[in-house]
Amino acid sequence: MIRVGIIGATGYAGEELVRLLSSHPEVKITHIMSKSFCGKKISELYGSYLALDEMLLEDIDYEIIQQDCDVVFTCLPHEPSIEIVPKLLACGVKVIDLSGSFRYKDAAVFEAWYGIHHTHPELLKKAVYGLCELYEEEIAGADLIGNPGCYTTASILALYPLLACNLIQKDSIIIDAKSGVTGAGRSEKLPFSFCESHESFKAYGVTTHRHTSEIEEQLSFAAGSPVALSFTPHLLPVKRGILATIYADLPKGLEISPIEIQGAYEKFYMGSDFIQILPHGSLPELKFVVGSNNCFIGYKIDERLHKLVIVSCIDNLIKGAAGQAVQNMNLMFGLDGSTGLPQLAMYL
Amino acid sequence: MIRVGIIGATGYAGEELVRLLSSHPEVKITHIMSKSFCGKKISELYGSYLALDEMLLEDIDYEIIQQDCDVVFTCLPHEPSIEIVPKLLACGVKVIDLSGSFRYKDAAVFEAWYGIHHTHPELLKKAVYGLCELYEEEIAGADLIGNPGCYTTASILALYPLLACNLIQKDSIIIDAKSGVTGAGRSEKLPFSFCESHESFKAYGVTTHRHTSEIEEQLSFAAGSPVALSFTPHLLPVKRGILATIYADLPKGLEISPIEIQGAYEKFYMGSDFIQILPHGSLPELKFVVGSNNCFIGYKIDERLHKLVIVSCIDNLIKGAAGQAVQNMNLMFGLDGSTGLPQLAMYL
Amino acid sequence: MIRVGIIGATGYAGEELVRLLSSHPEVKITHIMSKSFCGKKISELYGSYLALDEMLLEDIDYEIIQQDCDVVFTCLPHEPSIEIVPKLLACGVKVIDLSGSFRYKDAAVFEAWYGIHHTHPELLKKAVYGLCELYEEEIAGADLIGNPGCYTTASILALYPLLACNLIQKDSIIIDAKSGVTGAGRSEKLPFSFCESHESFKAYGVTTHRHTSEIEEQLSFAAGSPVALSFTPHLLPVKRGILATIYADLPKGLEISPIEIQGAYEKFYMGSDFIQILPHGSLPELKFVVGSNNCFIGYKIDERLHKLVIVSCIDNLIKGAAGQAVQNMNLMFGLDGSTGLPQLAMYL
Amino acid sequence: MIRVGIIGATGYAGEELVRLLSSHPEVKITHIMSKSFCGKKISELYGSYLALDEMLLEDIDYEIIQQDCDVVFTCLPHEPSIEIVPKLLACGVKVIDLSGSFRYKDAAVFEAWYGIHHTHPELLKKAVYGLCELYEEEIAGADLIGNPGCYTTASILALYPLLACNLIQKDSIIIDAKSGVTGAGRSEKLPFSFCESHESFKAYGVTTHRHTSEIEEQLSFAAGSPVALSFTPHLLPVKRGILATIYADLPKGLEISPIEIQGAYEKFYMGSDFIQILPHGSLPELKFVVGSNNCFIGYKIDERLHKLVIVSCIDNLIKGAAGQAVQNMNLMFGLDGSTGLPQLAMYL
Repeated sequence: MIRVGIIGATGYAGEELVRLLSSHPEVKITHIMSKSFCGKKISELYGSYLALDEMLLEDIDYEIIQQDCDVVFTCLPHEPSIEIVPKLLACGVKVIDLSGSFRYKDAAVFEAWYGIHHTHPELLKKAVYGLCELYEEEIAGADLIGNPGCYTTASILALYPLLACNLIQKDSIIIDAKSGVTGAGRSEKLPFSFCESHESFKAYGVTTHRHTSEIEEQLSFAAGSPVALSFTPHLLPVKRGILATIYADLPKGLEISPIEIQGAYEKFYMGSDFIQILPHGSLPELKFVVGSNNCFIGYKIDERLHKLVIVSCIDNLIKGAAGQAVQNMNLMFGLDGSTGLPQLAMYL
Repeated sequence: MIRVGIIGATGYAGEELVRLLSSHPEVKITHIMSKSFCGKKISELYGSYLALDEMLLEDIDYEIIQQDCDVVFTCLPHEPSIEIVPKLLACGVKVIDLSGSFRYKDAAVFEAWYGIHHTHPELLKKAVYGLCELYEEEIAGADLIGNPGCYTTASILALYPLLACNLIQKDSIIIDAKSGVTGAGRSEKLPFSFCESHESFKAYGVTTHRHTSEIEEQLSFAAGSPVALSFTPHLLPVKRGILATIYADLPKGLEISPIEIQGAYEKFYMGSDFIQILPHGSLPELKFVVGSNNCFIGYKIDERLHKLVIVSCIDNLIKGAAGQAVQNMNLMFGLDGSTGLPQLAMYL
Repeated sequence: MIRVGIIGATGYAGEELVRLLSSHPEVKITHIMSKSFCGKKISELYGSYLALDEMLLEDIDYEIIQQDCDVVFTCLPHEPSIEIVPKLLACGVKVIDLSGSFRYKDAAVFEAWYGIHHTHPELLKKAVYGLCELYEEEIAGADLIGNPGCYTTASILALYPLLACNLIQKDSIIIDAKSGVTGAGRSEKLPFSFCESHESFKAYGVTTHRHTSEIEEQLSFAAGSPVALSFTPHLLPVKRGILATIYADLPKGLEISPIEIQGAYEKFYMGSDFIQILPHGSLPELKFVVGSNNCFIGYKIDERLHKLVIVSCIDNLIKGAAGQAVQNMNLMFGLDGSTGLPQLAMYL
Repeated sequence: MIRVGIIGATGYAGEELVRLLSSHPEVKITHIMSKSFCGKKISELYGSYLALDEMLLEDIDYEIIQQDCDVVFTCLPHEPSIEIVPKLLACGVKVIDLSGSFRYKDAAVFEAWYGIHHTHPELLKKAVYGLCELYEEEIAGADLIGNPGCYTTASILALYPLLACNLIQKDSIIIDAKSGVTGAGRSEKLPFSFCESHESFKAYGVTTHRHTSEIEEQLSFAAGSPVALSFTPHLLPVKRGILATIYADLPKGLEISPIEIQGAYEKFYMGSDFIQILPHGSLPELKFVVGSNNCFIGYKIDERLHKLVIVSCIDNLIKGAAGQAVQNMNLMFGLDGSTGLPQLAMYL
């Protein structure tokens, strides 16, 4: 059994990790930790846990972690993550970090978009970007994973193969993304209250959302040269799920057929447990993926405009956060990537 | 034109008042006031107001109120209301108070259920309970209105005529009420966040909700003797609306026909603008009333069990708060009660 | 491996069965059947199944069933169930029927409330009522299960122990129940459209809902004499979940303490995997159970009125239908009742 | 008083017209007509109308229309509209048609996108496109109005001034639009059921939606040359509202400042009752407009990418259908355009 610790277990991504790992056949959760709620039972925050044996939230104790954990998941704000992750690595445990702090190769990009000084840039070389379908081998050998963002997972999975195969123009990409409210975390802020969100809809972070830079860095690797793109997130009145509608120009003067698009995706995702490419013209809906670790991708060629429209869907808390983190753990410990992860959505 | 001031204009009931009064044909809003947000524009809190001329939130100034207002609506927590209302009355303006502080005849009942000492019990004699369909005459002559609570409006309107006509047993009443989340006000508390309320449902305040005592006091007047009843509120994942399902035993050994029930309601509500009694067996839904100042009441006799089931619906922000307050103002200023109030719901 | 067939696999309860059983460790789904959609892939109706290997919907063929199935789940309207179930039993397979047709001991009660002539009343003796926590032994030896209704599961689990222990007055019971829209099944009817259900709420089937009779029959067994009660269902604007608020008078002249209530529940549910009794005054919310096979029960004694208020919650598609059916199958095949069933809700 | 008839009064746009016109100070509704429901009361379909005097749905009778109506609104599918509108005009009444049939100048474009043969192309010259803010004078003199589509209203109002002032590149436009479910009309189709729409989200009609052509025709008039653009609609799990996020490239090699954008909008919408242009970087949300006839437009210049992002919001049933139809009527009958129309949204 893999002995697991979770730091920041009371946020929405943290709770999702506890939920997924509590039924994982190869995992024993040894400690759940929270600064704000240590001493409380998790059921005091999430009543659903009354159904399980009592789990107590503890403070972080590195000696205990060293003794009792093989891997620790950190679900913390960006700055505390930078401070705590090195200490965990020093304990000899593997770390999967869900913040933005270890996702970048270039510390300057991180610092520019996050407005935070990175005090451990040396770890960025060591850290592996945990997008499982693209970095499977590196992940298997990693001690530190920068677990990808939610918007970025949906976006990069849809675009990476197309850029790598030169099937779209890299300067034409527009990502119009929509996320459920759990994406904002366990928040008491008024804009995320029921009355302010329900029956409404809005764009936010227009031209400035941090995930833009994470998507751009990864897609630059795909394209072999810098990519800049337009990314606009929106707040959907649903609890879970991200749907990104992506627009790109097809290469000038080239006819591109659905077979080529399909081929590019298959080249990267053949045999993947969680990526599903739909036939040309068939587009996924949120309910096809919510509750699962899947990413469904559909596309439609617009011949009239010589453009491609792509729709990519995930559950933001699972494939966009906790599920992908578990998938990373599976790969790091030599398990099948899909172990313990839901492969079928709750359509209803 | 009636010159109107609104204190506490930034809460949900306050904003609803501003909304309704801004299109009232006989009203000029002279001042909107807020302690927390004075100096701001209301559009900074409610973006919808960008469509109107700028309205500035001001601090309370009794001299200005005296000069510029004929009536002031107070949308404040219970304790500040008790302090501020006497000062407004001293200015010579009429006051319509939306808190619980001036709804009771018996200060001891208020103090027991609210846990607040009432420092101006002498005003309770002067104050008129603003349930327009029951106290029309008293309201017309009043200087101070205790505007009824939301649950209480839906409950009392359904039960008062039946108790007054001895058509139900007064010790058998159970009110199972469900309210939309605006009932909790403009709240940053986690239980009212989108993620904690959407796709969920719960009872709260079971056996202890303050509105129990307000309903009981009014229904005791109807019955001519003390009434005690079971009242359970629930939180519905909708923005607006209250639906109360009410159970009562029919009088022992008496056959009661729908005609008698209908007759009792007609006796009290004949010619009323806003009360709609549906035919026997036909029951109202929230969407029949939301967006309007209406109260729809339906009922079904359960012959097998010799019981009556009643369903009563209102929009909690309109008939349950701001709309009824405007209806009170209309009566106090000699206007038709329905002036400026929406008589048709937004079904969609 | 238990070889399973599902008839009526395309309705909402049917799909939920396919979903749960497709990850059950001891089950192989051999056939999914549908009259209306035979020849189609299930992914054509539920896009989520694109993530799994193709599953074809077939017509019913008793020879094939005899050959390939150990147990068949029937998710059909009441009348076809009465005709098909005997044929399946004749094939030598065990049957778990999700309709109302095999839930009653008294055919006359079924016929009175359903308005359907029961052509196989002899099977009602043989059929076991599949409320797992109350009939575990009988279920283990059964060939035919009448799987309980959704409202009835939530209601009976909350009331059976209290009636059996004489802790409430049997003629005082009022059940005010609220269900998500999946309870209406995969319906194209306008009242279940998004625009007619969202932001609305209503009671329906008042005094006449069929589940009344199913609850009454079982509670009569608990009480040892006939029980008649008031049951009112409502339509909640959520997809899944039932919350029943139940009112009952405590025995006249007797003080009842929380310890006695707790004791009655423990007597019946001690060691149960899925029933969770909350401490006195603590009440469950839908989000504590949705996505799991749990039933959470909370209660509050109203000393002022000498009444008991109980709140009982389940996921209507899981504990109220498909999950309980799987739990029945587990017991019939000697497995632990919880095998393959979710024990922790999706709080988010 | 303007005497008004409404044909197709039971659809969602039709009911919205009845709702708005029933409180319009200068209107008397003389007939509401419906083929499918003639003989019924409108309250049998929309329970909210129990609050008003009984309104009976009638069959179409041209003699009665000629006698009793000054203007008729037609809320019908595209083909019946083409047949009925000429007969109404022959009666000497003015007609405001809410279908797509009279919105185009070029019948061939209509026929290509709608797949319907237009049997009265001669009326297209006579018909005025009823986008009030752009064609106010023509509308004032018109006998026949082609009332704009919902998506098109939000899109054209946002883009027309920018194209007319050469502030964006006309071949770079991408419109990612999201609509509430009322946009699908009063539909019994499964995809619009609560369970299939709630907590989900999807794109539809990708590259083929009919409104593309309507937007393109109008924007071609703005640009003075043909415009082709990418338009993708999505289904939002809300009842009302459209939010369009629009992307366009700024002119190559030109710096464009917010002042120029603001200037272009002011040139077209100065003094308009219902168009609200937000300051640079401030973006509207659905709740700012739902319930009103307003269109709110916000924009943000993306200097990094030399692009413009625009967000445009309306209530699809009001400014996107019935409200704009009433605004057209107001202009045709010499009233102020805003008469009887809600100018403030229901934020809550």
